[in-house]
Amino acid sequence: MLVKKMKEQAAQMDGQKVEIQGWVRTNRASKKIGFIVINDGSCFTNVQVVYEQDLPTFEQAGKITLGSAVEVKGTFVYTPNGKQSFEIHADSIEVLGACDHDYPIQKKRHSFEYMREIPHIRPRANSYYAIFRLRSVLSMAIHTFFQDQGFVYVHTPIITGNDAEGAGECFTVTTRSDDKYDKDFFGKHAQLTVSGQLHVEPFALTYRNVYTFGPTFRAENSNTTRHASEFWMIEPELAFADLSDDMDCIEAMIKYCINYCLEHAPEEMAFFNQYVDKGVIDRIKHVANSKFVRMTYTEAIEHLEKVKDQFENKDIYWGMDLQSEHERYISEKIVNGPVFLTDYPKDIKAFYMRVNDDNKTVAACDLLVPYVGELVGGSQREERYDVLESRMKELGMDQSILQWYLDLRRFGGCKHSGFGLGFDRMLMYVTGMQNIRDVEPYPRTPRNLIF
Amino acid sequence: MLVKKMKEQAAQMDGQKVEIQGWVRTNRASKKIGFIVINDGSCFTNVQVVYEQDLPTFEQAGKITLGSAVEVKGTFVYTPNGKQSFEIHADSIEVLGACDHDYPIQKKRHSFEYMREIPHIRPRANSYYAIFRLRSVLSMAIHTFFQDQGFVYVHTPIITGNDAEGAGECFTVTTRSDDKYDKDFFGKHAQLTVSGQLHVEPFALTYRNVYTFGPTFRAENSNTTRHASEFWMIEPELAFADLSDDMDCIEAMIKYCINYCLEHAPEEMAFFNQYVDKGVIDRIKHVANSKFVRMTYTEAIEHLEKVKDQFENKDIYWGMDLQSEHERYISEKIVNGPVFLTDYPKDIKAFYMRVNDDNKTVAACDLLVPYVGELVGGSQREERYDVLESRMKELGMDQSILQWYLDLRRFGGCKHSGFGLGFDRMLMYVTGMQNIRDVEPYPRTPRNLIF
Repeated sequence: MLVKKMKEQAAQMDGQKVEIQGWVRTNRASKKIGFIVINDGSCFTNVQVVYEQDLPTFEQAGKITLGSAVEVKGTFVYTPNGKQSFEIHADSIEVLGACDHDYPIQKKRHSFEYMREIPHIRPRANSYYAIFRLRSVLSMAIHTFFQDQGFVYVHTPIITGNDAEGAGECFTVTTRSDDKYDKDFFGKHAQLTVSGQLHVEPFALTYRNVYTFGPTFRAENSNTTRHASEFWMIEPELAFADLSDDMDCIEAMIKYCINYCLEHAPEEMAFFNQYVDKGVIDRIKHVANSKFVRMTYTEAIEHLEKVKDQFENKDIYWGMDLQSEHERYISEKIVNGPVFLTDYPKDIKAFYMRVNDDNKTVAACDLLVPYVGELVGGSQREERYDVLESRMKELGMDQSILQWYLDLRRFGGCKHSGFGLGFDRMLMYVTGMQNIRDVEPYPRTPRNLIF
Repeated sequence: MLVKKMKEQAAQMDGQKVEIQGWVRTNRASKKIGFIVINDGSCFTNVQVVYEQDLPTFEQAGKITLGSAVEVKGTFVYTPNGKQSFEIHADSIEVLGACDHDYPIQKKRHSFEYMREIPHIRPRANSYYAIFRLRSVLSMAIHTFFQDQGFVYVHTPIITGNDAEGAGECFTVTTRSDDKYDKDFFGKHAQLTVSGQLHVEPFALTYRNVYTFGPTFRAENSNTTRHASEFWMIEPELAFADLSDDMDCIEAMIKYCINYCLEHAPEEMAFFNQYVDKGVIDRIKHVANSKFVRMTYTEAIEHLEKVKDQFENKDIYWGMDLQSEHERYISEKIVNGPVFLTDYPKDIKAFYMRVNDDNKTVAACDLLVPYVGELVGGSQREERYDVLESRMKELGMDQSILQWYLDLRRFGGCKHSGFGLGFDRMLMYVTGMQNIRDVEPYPRTPRNLIF
């Protein structure tokens, strides 16, 4: 029986015979009695197994090493006043798989750096054990949120022939060891996707509401705590929707995900709140209960100009790209909560964003949240063929590669909007984890490819 | 209001004022009355909009082209005895985005081959419109099945440093145009994953029950209807589970997915049943209601030897790799339903499969289904360090690359099993679609990389 089930039914199970399999977290024994703490993988809670002198294998039991896989048969004892609500008194303890003494996890606390070298073992350590279950829970939150509203999930391609945003360095995908790509597997240069947005737009112009959820890649040589070369992204796209509709969707999604995690992973969230980031639960609950403020980029610049001496980067002017310190100031000091900055200068944003009537700004939004900065970036897409075409020319883009994308504007194109959510960053935000290397199962970063 | 909602509430909506946005499927008008059929993306059902001479824009309405995006305001008319259960009588029809006359989809039937050249437009054609929604529904079926049972979803890496099975040709991932991989982005050779299995096993030895669901890649130069260079795979892994438990999980999953699709996409399934593969609904219902038979490879060979003259490949012997014709014969003629073949010769299976006591066969299973052949492949994994190590030596594998994988057998390893389901093939199976190029949004095959 899984421990998760036992927990739910503890009050009814007192005295029953039970059987569990799991891995030893700790084991200590005196001459008369021993205690093995086991986790069976079904939930964060461990089970304490009590074994006494009358156990035929009492001596061997005392020697079972940390990390071993064991099977325990015994009696369920309900302990409503104990630290745990139940324990198991063992009739038998069998070692299914022993654990050697050079096991990389010992009782002491290990650094995150040390753990990153052993991605095949670290899920068994508390922080990672909590984070990777939360990764699964948050994934399901995303799917449930969108599917419940009828959004169609689209698998946009990983290998692509066109560079989506013109932004970001790309990995080449090849079966050759030279650059004769015309003789390559696909007969031309191929690369890993940096975004599914352009590929998903045609589906929004068919199903109205769609989303992607898949891996994306950047070959950028940046060694920060927030950048990885491989990461998962969610890119919803909504037809017949303007920037305001887009922001409504973003806000509803963030709130839904927060509530889903608190509801479906309460033990893990309590762990993060106690050991990883004190106060994280209050902080995300506050976000889930706030009305997200909307403020134009232009207003934000006015606020920042007044206090520019506080910043490392004091050169505040309309047209600049905001740095993380500026974004955090806006959300933490000015708004004290989540805030959408909107209507950015077109020169610092992507070619596909809809140009506003002022011809200087675009209908874009970034969601900024306290202590993190940018969490989501979105925009209304340019649906006017001629405007989009001239924007691409202005930027010196090769129109022939994206003619299909332009053509969508001639074939029943309409007002539409979308956004991108970095899944790993959202996971960091919800848990308070500080390094993207600690929320991905096998993080890939420059010169770092373990297994 | 979305058409999906209107359908559900049709009986209560008679006479109400409504507003919809969508894309024109057909438009025909006489001098006094016109009919525009619109799909709004929310469901397979189209809506008929009736417009009459008193509409101020009656003449323009008659000229609205197929594919255009429109907004209609009007009166909802409940027609319980009509072909559709309701229609809308227009007060106004506005073109939001016109569609040029060179629109690639016209009223006539287009070939699949033609459609493959226009992946940005084809989702609007009936077959594709049905298939890509079903793709989303089947994805959610998978997630729901596993999450409901507490399986943890793991994002195994796309870029990897070790070739998982030693099987299958791989794509190189690089930022260079030569083969100096020690100076490459990751400081060594990197490739696209062919399977997440090895990477997910550590998580099964932590959470007990886990699954992957992500893209995988093969650089094989095969131009068949069932092979793509990029495809999605589901790879569950169960600790404390033997081959029989594994097969129980496979059987439950397949049945769950079939029922989920029938329940959540009834219109699309009816379309496939009528236009794509007559009888597909009965066939998959039969599978959902069958007890899957289990038969050893050795028994299968005995059956096949008796009828070997029927086959193109008549050379039937113990130790051979079964061809598709043999697999289909077993499931269609011998069993007349889904069948697990088990205990294959170890020489034709992967190194990580558990060697049986006969030392000749391994605890593997393939699920064969009528009219398709192999749908799922699974196995119990070799959990004995020494057996696995000698198997790797036998096969001349480089142990240093997979030492981490071997080490899992020293650190609380235990009996565990898993399987792989090709998502695209499952989608083909459920819908009766015959070519993998028609079930993927942007299929990638040799010398074929559109957008």
